[in-house]
Amino acid sequence: MSIEAARRAGRTRLSPERERELYVAVVDLLREVGYDALTMDGVAARTHSSKATLYRQWNGKPELVIAALKDRKPAGLAEIDTGTLAGDLREIARQMATEGEEDTGLMRALLHAMEHDADLARVFHESLVAPEVAALHRVVDRAIARGELDPKVPARIFLPHLMVGALIARPLVDSREADRAYLRKYVDAVVLPALGMHP
Amino acid sequence: MSIEAARRAGRTRLSPERERELYVAVVDLLREVGYDALTMDGVAARTHSSKATLYRQWNGKPELVIAALKDRKPAGLAEIDTGTLAGDLREIARQMATEGEEDTGLMRALLHAMEHDADLARVFHESLVAPEVAALHRVVDRAIARGELDPKVPARIFLPHLMVGALIARPLVDSREADRAYLRKYVDAVVLPALGMHP
Repeated sequence: MSIEAARRAGRTRLSPERERELYVAVVDLLREVGYDALTMDGVAARTHSSKATLYRQWNGKPELVIAALKDRKPAGLAEIDTGTLAGDLREIARQMATEGEEDTGLMRALLHAMEHDADLARVFHESLVAPEVAALHRVVDRAIARGELDPKVPARIFLPHLMVGALIARPLVDSREADRAYLRKYVDAVVLPALGMHP
Repeated sequence: MSIEAARRAGRTRLSPERERELYVAVVDLLREVGYDALTMDGVAARTHSSKATLYRQWNGKPELVIAALKDRKPAGLAEIDTGTLAGDLREIARQMATEGEEDTGLMRALLHAMEHDADLARVFHESLVAPEVAALHRVVDRAIARGELDPKVPARIFLPHLMVGALIARPLVDSREADRAYLRKYVDAVVLPALGMHP
């Protein structure tokens, strides 16, 4: 759409640089005051932007916060396609791994806020969870199409649970982060064998 | 120890009925005000007991709260021994399953409080996590001793992560609780095949 058309539609987009600036400010604020105390007023003041602009571009606080968090992990699992199931799963493990307490803290604060904020829970699921789950199912579908994976293997529908579960269970069970070395070992020891593949 | 000896030792135990009353009151308070705002003073007032008694019996707030939560799931995994690995895992799934939003909410509030309360995190791990993890490893060890399970199966050390992970990942991925039907299916489709057993 041309700039003119966008203007007519009433939603001129911010430049990517300006968007990035806003996202960084939102994550800073999130860390400083938490989700509940973060306001669109606060974001507008911190970033010298108008609330109207923020609402026009992101619709609301849950959308803005989730977009800011997504921006920190730009690649996403959708891009992964190494040609083999084992390769894809190991790359997924590499990208999902928690490197640094910072991310974990932000995510846990958000999970807690979702307890009493149904809007946030909905946006979190639609924008962060659903696309990653879909990407994981595509990895499985491609392995089936290549003849690598038996479509009747019952574990195939549990791939998202297995990956998300490992990420969250590790700190609880071992009081350590689910880092790359851990997730790589988990993929080889658990996920591939559960799918009937023996690395 | 006789009552006289206990008195001399300065730590007469409460009766099981009285202990249960206190636990119920602590869980009620936890639900009403959350972990951070719950105080030993508040518990003493609510239960008409002295703070000295509470501290003598439980040592501190984290210990009291964790003991109260443990009391709600009295059996624990340590008792499980059905004679087969599949039987043990299905019974574990049955006991771990979340039935009712109530438990989930309490547990999530606690996980959040642990973020900034190292004492609580330590007691949570020592009293709730470690005994269950040990029980899961015993299930595996017995299966090996019976000749049911190959001791070289790499997934064996991940059994706690697999079970805890399923419990937490289900609500995130599917926006539904990890109920008994789900966990039973997960054990048959994922856990047993990962261990090289095909139900």
